[in-house]
This record gives sequence, structure tokens and C-alpha cells, in this order.
Amino acid sequence: MTESFLYLTRLGIDTHQEPVVYMREDCHVCRSEGFDAQGRVEICSGKNSIIATLDIVKGDLLSHQKAGLSEAAWRLLGAAEGDKATFRHAPPVESMAYVRGKLYGKPFTEEGARHIIRDIDAGRYSDIQLSAYVTACAANNLNIEETIHITRAMVEAGQRFDWGDGRIVVDKHCVGGLPGNRTTPIVVAIAAANGLTMPKTSSRAITSPAGTADTMETLTRVSLSFKKMRAVVEQEGACLAWGGSVSLSPTDDIIIRVERALDLDSEGQMVASVISKKVAAGSTHVLIDIPVGPTAKVRSAELAERLANALRDTGEALGLRIKTIISDGSQPVGRGVGPALEAYDLLKVLQNQADAPADLRDRALAVTAAVLEMGGACEAREGLALAKKTLESGKAWEKFQAICNAQGGLREPPVARFTHVITSERTGIVALMNNRVISRLASLAGAPNAQSAGLTMHVRLGDTVESGQPLMTLHAEAAGELEYALDFYAAHPEAIHIEEEVV
Amino acid sequence: MTESFLYLTRLGIDTHQEPVVYMREDCHVCRSEGFDAQGRVEICSGKNSIIATLDIVKGDLLSHQKAGLSEAAWRLLGAAEGDKATFRHAPPVESMAYVRGKLYGKPFTEEGARHIIRDIDAGRYSDIQLSAYVTACAANNLNIEETIHITRAMVEAGQRFDWGDGRIVVDKHCVGGLPGNRTTPIVVAIAAANGLTMPKTSSRAITSPAGTADTMETLTRVSLSFKKMRAVVEQEGACLAWGGSVSLSPTDDIIIRVERALDLDSEGQMVASVISKKVAAGSTHVLIDIPVGPTAKVRSAELAERLANALRDTGEALGLRIKTIISDGSQPVGRGVGPALEAYDLLKVLQNQADAPADLRDRALAVTAAVLEMGGACEAREGLALAKKTLESGKAWEKFQAICNAQGGLREPPVARFTHVITSERTGIVALMNNRVISRLASLAGAPNAQSAGLTMHVRLGDTVESGQPLMTLHAEAAGELEYALDFYAAHPEAIHIEEEVV
Repeated sequence: MTESFLYLTRLGIDTHQEPVVYMREDCHVCRSEGFDAQGRVEICSGKNSIIATLDIVKGDLLSHQKAGLSEAAWRLLGAAEGDKATFRHAPPVESMAYVRGKLYGKPFTEEGARHIIRDIDAGRYSDIQLSAYVTACAANNLNIEETIHITRAMVEAGQRFDWGDGRIVVDKHCVGGLPGNRTTPIVVAIAAANGLTMPKTSSRAITSPAGTADTMETLTRVSLSFKKMRAVVEQEGACLAWGGSVSLSPTDDIIIRVERALDLDSEGQMVASVISKKVAAGSTHVLIDIPVGPTAKVRSAELAERLANALRDTGEALGLRIKTIISDGSQPVGRGVGPALEAYDLLKVLQNQADAPADLRDRALAVTAAVLEMGGACEAREGLALAKKTLESGKAWEKFQAICNAQGGLREPPVARFTHVITSERTGIVALMNNRVISRLASLAGAPNAQSAGLTMHVRLGDTVESGQPLMTLHAEAAGELEYALDFYAAHPEAIHIEEEVV
Repeated sequence: MTESFLYLTRLGIDTHQEPVVYMREDCHVCRSEGFDAQGRVEICSGKNSIIATLDIVKGDLLSHQKAGLSEAAWRLLGAAEGDKATFRHAPPVESMAYVRGKLYGKPFTEEGARHIIRDIDAGRYSDIQLSAYVTACAANNLNIEETIHITRAMVEAGQRFDWGDGRIVVDKHCVGGLPGNRTTPIVVAIAAANGLTMPKTSSRAITSPAGTADTMETLTRVSLSFKKMRAVVEQEGACLAWGGSVSLSPTDDIIIRVERALDLDSEGQMVASVISKKVAAGSTHVLIDIPVGPTAKVRSAELAERLANALRDTGEALGLRIKTIISDGSQPVGRGVGPALEAYDLLKVLQNQADAPADLRDRALAVTAAVLEMGGACEAREGLALAKKTLESGKAWEKFQAICNAQGGLREPPVARFTHVITSERTGIVALMNNRVISRLASLAGAPNAQSAGLTMHVRLGDTVESGQPLMTLHAEAAGELEYALDFYAAHPEAIHIEEEVV
């Protein structure tokens, strides 16, 4: 059998994470190998090989001598224009047997979890297979042993920081679900100003209108290399980086993308995601904030307790000290919801401005207090006083600027082109806020893809409002998105529920 | 807001079932709508609208004024070159809430099942979402009520035959898993020769090397329109058509493609698939053959019993009379495995040739006997004699030719370009056959995509073989596929296990 090859060409098609290869159905490789549309093909070029999904091309998009690659395939294969490549049917992904076993009630073993995560990391899972894995883990379908196995496998799949000399390395995490709850940059600034090491990596938004990385990106560079992040932390004691750029637990981003497309949460997978990133960042002591409210991600004290246990047990199995605090999750935090709008809120707090949102400030101080105490920066019960002092003295703001400068310079967040004020249709008291609807509204307005998009809140629970009084302002970069958000609001007035007073 | 549109162009990219739209990231629609790679986009053109997955194009593949469509998108939208189309963020697929609910233990309701199947039928599920649905149904995760709901919904989503006048309409189905078990054309010919109505639709191969539709396609046209199928049945009393061409239970093909990619079976989904097609075909009495063997699809009498009950309960809930028979599934049936090779086997049986495979003939007669009795063509216990008489008299062969001629003419099945004989490496007795490995071997040789590909068996269980004696012959259209199958055989000698005799 003669070796059959094609020349690789970059088609410039962005299929997101899934590697796709494009071939003519009448090219000699498709014919001799008997390839079929949507089949899985192994591509070898030089020393590298990847598995890609085949899209069959019928027209003149490609010559018979060429195979086109999607952006993900191009990147994973490390290809150059005109490289020769050979193709064969991809062998079945063997670790899928563990996923199938799981569906029949067989828990993931350590070996199974490692095998699955290794294959996901190598891009061997198609989107359809990733979806089956995510679905098999969904709901509350992972026990604590399985969660620990997956967490460990996710850590092994990526790079890992070791800060040496056995020092305490603090971290914090918020389970999320609360729009505008952007305390992290404040906590990091105060902790680092007190000499603690806090190499903070954050995620981009998953289903929310902004992640901490999205907000920080409106202020400075967050895509740091592994080396650059180390340098920033060595210099300033802390950083505020995007986790995806340093390959800490890289499979997490792949899994999260599919969870997002399915709008599906897996408690076990979420715990694995959080803990694996903390371990990879070299943290030793982690504070976890779990907001609880009827429309927050965690809806009851009971669920919060279970999640706190899973986080603690998994973290401790991987050598971390974990402390959890349960906080009020009944309404958005601060005023802005969306990357830049949240950035303006946290700048006000850091700069001790008179109109800084008090709730954001209070939450940040409470979290910081616990971090300072865990990290040994002060005695127990002295954390809050120290946090306040550091903030009010301007040292936190100073440290925040130093971190941003180390990362590439502090910049001004952008302002949206379009705004629209939503007013109250009646007089009464703000009785309920729906975090999910408010988040969705900000997302539809364009957040986080459009940095300046989102909304600002003008009222809080318990406020008395008059008919015609502003409730929220929508911010958007595109007229279509503003309109889309307004349509959604018209269908979902429960975003802010005003209860009319009985006179 | 001004309406923003692009001109549609057919890119000729076959992404199989998933509709994909290709747009430049810097086109005015992407920019004004804030679209993102792999986002779900609603496309409206004329009176039609579809939901497609967005692949972002970076290079010169497309002009700024155009949006490219994949073949599936082109077909679903009914587009013509240069049609104007508008684009917006697709609303969330609401029926996914039922899939999520199922993962949290909430059984599918009638309303939920209908909503899901309707959305799948309309192409509103992305591959990732389809995979989540299939995974949620996998293993034994559907109870009988859920199975009935899904079956009914699948029937409603497609066309349905009504043969009128309250007559008995017979059908048969084999659960599968047994290579070469191609009894259907023989059963249909004998039943129709005895005046029964049997509008048989069959599937193409799912994970096997051939489905009945694949085999029949080597002999005649099987892609019949609804109208054509009706005409053939009115004239000959029966047909042997491909189910996919008449839109009976069309969602089934979509679901099966994903199950195949995941190599995942769902008992409930399988029952829904079988029964929905029978109901849609207008059948009233259905015989179901369940082969049982250690490497068949159903591995124990207990599992066969459970499956038989599920088929019967679901069928009866939809108004069918169901009879099940459990048959020997310990080895392949006949000699050929693969579309054309199986066609040659069944021609020999129909033509009463001396070298016709006796096991295929016997199985076909047993099934036919039950069908004749159910359909009232004879008294109880007289079916077998009638079936034999019809076959031996040549009336079955006559009827088979008449059906093929009505469908478009009888033709000669193709013969493969490459063959390779696999011989025994030792002397002994054929003690075990692995149906799965044998099926996979035939698939790797190119079946069913290459009609002539597959393998022929030269031995049966209990045969004594000498070292060097032929066990199987591989047939392939491409040298690469022959080689791939041989590699697989080298790694899986358990395909045919020869036990050495103790002398």
C-alpha cells in the first residue's frame, strides 16, 4: 500500500474548540480510506498527530491535493501552510468506555478519570463525546471519590506553580451566580498590601455577564504567560490573571464551554474545576464564598452546606486548607453588571470615593478579613479591622495599581455607545430581584463579549420607588443587542418586582 | 434599527445533520449582533427559518456581503443562491429544560417528550444538545411511560400510512446484533405471495456492517417517495423500502446518528425507534425477533424478556399487536456479512439453490411462519408448512422479483475489487464466534459504505478445521480498508476461536 498524503492548508474557519478537517469527497485519500462526513480522522504531520472531525467538501473550496484545517486543528497540530500529512480512521477513543460505564452506574475510577481527562486534554473527544461526558457528570451524579479523581486528573493535565520555601499561598473563590459580585480585585489588593502571596487566576464568564477576568481585562492585560505571571507575583506578591492563559487545568475551559452550551451544571465537575485551578496555582489556603438566595446559583442553606463539604473534602484530599463562608445572595452586588461597569464599581471602592457602592465594599472587606486571618497576616478576629485600615489608607489602591502596572499598565474601561433607561411602571417597594433574569438581560445587551455592555442598577431591595423612576440602565455596543435585551425585559418584568403599597 | 441582511451562498460543506452557517467575523451582521463562534443563530429567508451553529470565518473564504451555509442548512432552509437572509441570536431551545430535568431525576412527561421531539425534528438541537438528550436516555434510564411518550411523539413528527378498510397489516423486526441475519426480504416475499399486506421499511446500518436497506439497495431502488411506496404496496401487497426516504419517524435517523457516534444504546430509545416506525408504516400486527447470545446485542434470556415486555407494552399502548420470538444469537447467519454479500445469500435462498445457506433459510421460514399465522394467512401451527411450500414452489422468488421491479428494477449486486483469505493458524474445533468482532471486521473492510465490502464466513460453530484452512474471506473496495481490517484481525484473533483437540 503506497502512503497517501495531502497538503495542509489553513481555511481560517473558527469552529471553537473542536478540530475539524475539510476534504473533498473525491480526493484520493477519502476514496482509498473510505472516509465519511462527520467521521473521526487521525491526521499525522511531522511528529504530531491529532484527531479531527471530517467535514466533506463538495465544491471548489479545496483542490484534490489539499486538506483544509479549522483554526483549532491548525493550532493543535502545529501545522504550517503546505505541510504534508497522512490520514487514517481514528481509533475509537477508548476512555469513552468509562463514560458509557458511568451511565450504567459504574462510578469513575482513578484510572478512568485520568484516562478521560488525558483524552479531553489531547483534543481526542469530539463535541458530541464531550457532551456525553458532561451530561454523565451532570446533576449530582458524581460522588466525592469520583470528584477527587477528576480533580487530580485535571491538575495533572496542566501546568502547576510551585512557589517554593513552604510559604502560605492564599486564594479566594466565589461560587458565583450573583451579578456584580466583583470582590476579587479588592481582596487581592488588600491581601498583597499586607504581604500575603496571592497568585490569583480567574475565569471568564461562563453563563454570567462577566467573570473576574473579563472585568480585569477592561483595566489591564490579563492574558499572562506562565513566566510572566510568575514574575508579576514575585514582584508584587499577587496578580489578577486570566486562568486560561497560563494553562492551569486546561481541560476545564473545554468542559465549561460544553456545560455552557447545554446550560448544565454539575456540582462534582464544578468542585473539580475550582479545586484543580487552586492546586495548579500553588495555593495552600483557600477561602470560598457561597452566596445563597432564591435566584442565586445556590438556593438554600442546605445545598450550600453540601457544596461546602464537597469543596472542603476535595480540597483537603489534594492538600489544601479550605474555609467556606455563606453570604447573602438575594440581589446583585454593587451597581454595574458587565465587565466595564463592574470595573467602575470596584475602582470607586479602591479609591475610597464617596459614592462607592457600600454593599460591594462590605462584602469585599468580609472576605478579605477571612483571607488575612487564614494567611496569618493578623490574629483571629483582627482581619476586618486590618482590611478596613488597608483600604482606607490608600495602600490597597496603591497595590492594585502596582499589580496592573506589572501586568502591562492600568487603563480606562470603555463606555457603551447605546444606553436605555428602564423605569418603574408603578409605585411601591422593591420586593424581589431575580438574579438570573438580570444576568440574562446584561448578557443579551452584549456582556461580556462587548466589554462596555451590561446594565446598571438604580434600586436595591426595600427601596421605595415612584412610577416612572429609573430602575436600571441598559448599556450596549450594538443597537440589535439593546433591542434584544428590551424584548426580553418586556417578557420578563420579574427582573425587579415592585410590590404596590396598600394605602 | 435598520434591517441587516446577508446574501446566502452554498459552500458545499457536508456537516452531516447539523446545520452550520459561516460568516466573516468582520461582516456587519456579526458586528451588530455580537455573534460568537459556535453560537446558535436563527436565519430567516423568505418564509422559512432555521437555527444553525455559527462557524466564524477569518480569511477570504467569504465576502462581507455573504453568509455560507452547510449542506444541511441549505436543505433545511430551502435556500437558493443569492437569497437574502436576516440573522439573530437563536432563542434558547426551551425543551432542553426537560432534558435537564431528566438528569435531575424528573421523568419525561408526554408534553416534554413531544416538545423535545418536535424541536429535534425542526433541527433546533445542536449536536451537543442531541448528545445530551441521547445520553440522558442511555442505559436503562427510560421507564415504560416515558418510552410510550417518546414513541408517540416520534410518530407525530413524521408522515403516517393509513391502509384503510381496517385490514390486517403485518410487519417484522429483528433487534439485530447478528451479522448476516438478513431474513426480511425472504419473509416479505413469502408473506406477500400469500396475500398479506406488508409495507416493509428498513433502516440502514447503525453500528453494523449492513442494514436491510443497505442490502436491498444492492438489488433495487429503496429510496421511495411516500407516494411511490404506497403505489408499490397497492400493486404488490408489499415493499422493501428504506425508512428514511418516506419520512416515517424522521427524528429517529437524527437520534441514531448520535447514538452511533457515541457507541451508546438506550433500550427505551430503541423501543421508541422500532415501534414508532411500525405505527407510522400503518402496521397492525408485528413480529419481533430477538436473537440472544453472548456477543449478540441481547446477551441473556433475562434481558431478552425485559426487552420483549417493553416492546409489547409500548406497541400495545400505540394500538399494535406484538408477538416476540427469541432466537439463537451465538454466531453469524448465512455466509456473507456486508450489503452485497448478504444479498447473494438471500438470492440463493429465494431461488432454492442447492448451496443456499441452510441456517438463513431456516430462520427466515420460522419468522415467516409466525407472520403468516398472525396475519391470518393460515391456521395456527400451519405457518411453517405454508412458508416452505411458498418458497419451494418458486412463488416467493416470483413475488420478490415483482416487488423489486415495482420499486425500479432488479439489479446484480456488485463484487469487491480486493479480497483476502484468512486461514486458521491451528487445527481444532470452532468453539466460539464473536459477533461484535466479526461485525467490526466487516465494517473496517468498508461495509456498508462500500456495498461490495465485508466478509464471507467459511466455517460454523462445531466445525473441525485444519491449520491453513480458510476461515473467512475479506472483501474491500480500497486497499487501505483491507489493510485496516487485517490489522484489526491481528489484534483480535477472538473473532473465531478454534479450540485445539486433545489427542
